[in-house]
Amino acid sequence: MAHKSLSQNISRGVAAVPKIVDHDERRLELVDATWRIIARLGIEGATMREIALEAGFANGALKPYFPTKDTLLEFAFGHVFNRTNQRIATVTDGKTGMAALRAFCLEVLPLDEERVNEARIVIPFWQKAINDPQKAEIHQQSMEDWVAAIRQYLAEAREAGDVNAAVDDDTLAGQLLNMLLGAQIGAALAAGSGATFGAGPGLADQLEGFLALLAE
Amino acid sequence: MAHKSLSQNISRGVAAVPKIVDHDERRLELVDATWRIIARLGIEGATMREIALEAGFANGALKPYFPTKDTLLEFAFGHVFNRTNQRIATVTDGKTGMAALRAFCLEVLPLDEERVNEARIVIPFWQKAINDPQKAEIHQQSMEDWVAAIRQYLAEAREAGDVNAAVDDDTLAGQLLNMLLGAQIGAALAAGSGATFGAGPGLADQLEGFLALLAE
Repeated sequence: MAHKSLSQNISRGVAAVPKIVDHDERRLELVDATWRIIARLGIEGATMREIALEAGFANGALKPYFPTKDTLLEFAFGHVFNRTNQRIATVTDGKTGMAALRAFCLEVLPLDEERVNEARIVIPFWQKAINDPQKAEIHQQSMEDWVAAIRQYLAEAREAGDVNAAVDDDTLAGQLLNMLLGAQIGAALAAGSGATFGAGPGLADQLEGFLALLAE
Repeated sequence: MAHKSLSQNISRGVAAVPKIVDHDERRLELVDATWRIIARLGIEGATMREIALEAGFANGALKPYFPTKDTLLEFAFGHVFNRTNQRIATVTDGKTGMAALRAFCLEVLPLDEERVNEARIVIPFWQKAINDPQKAEIHQQSMEDWVAAIRQYLAEAREAGDVNAAVDDDTLAGQLLNMLLGAQIGAALAAGSGATFGAGPGLADQLEGFLALLAE
């Protein structure tokens, strides 16, 4: 792949890729550039040319890494999920029950700029997934993993006496998941319009309120 | 507008619009065609040509009604909101408190094919609204109206002793709204993949579970 990239660039007379390249590193640079561009210009404005420009790549230099915009987008979306899941693993480490549930939800909610930007990436992903079963499957799998985690935390919290609601855990997990997903929408749209509705401290209050309902 | 349409069509040699036309009616035909096409092909596949074909219009005949795809989309999205609000007005008519709240939420949740199709339209709308302050404002205004309605129902339900939660109504309204929005995502994506996760009777159970939490 490096060789192809090199020869392509030379044949086009643009700057050659250095001989020793960390290709995983460069893919992640492209992903970062991709979501900066999506956040700024929207998914339709995120052309391969714009992404290359943003990442400081020569135009043709993207092709060896991602032959099409769709392969790049899929990798970028997957990376958002992975990064969120890594952060979740970090913040829930060593926690169980209510403490783990709270940490999990706080990490998914768009409470800072980084996560608001992620919300601005996940909505275009959902839009594409509506007519793309492969992307819908990625979403599905992630959501099933999240529901399984939430259910485990709820079961532990019941054991500890922190959840007393007369509603079953499957239903509670579904409610929480939808609340977390819905929160992405308000935050992503508010970021563009300068409005604050749906984003910010209100979401943390909603989470605390919900956890309080479970304890009653 | 009718005159322009007529002369345009004649000059292009395609079928002329009949002399007596209900233009509002035709606009709604175009809206219906638009969301059938969006539901089938996605928003990127919804070209003016495809929409004209679906509606049985000659290609150039759309222009007098909607000069650009964006004007058509904005009208179509606005129509989805209006239709949902009309249905809400019908099902909540004469109801107050918990009964009105239940009826409102059941009407917004994607529990049948028509409303799943609306979910498949509202997600592309959100995606566009991320980078379009005018569309974000339409969303914002609708959500503020919905939150105001939910808060009124909650206040009435407290009066009647049906809500006893020690969480304030602002917070509860935000939770419910996000739950309703999040439910659109699962339903819209599940419809494409053939999966059932997030759609169907689970959502009605989630709503009943949440209303039960409020009463506890």
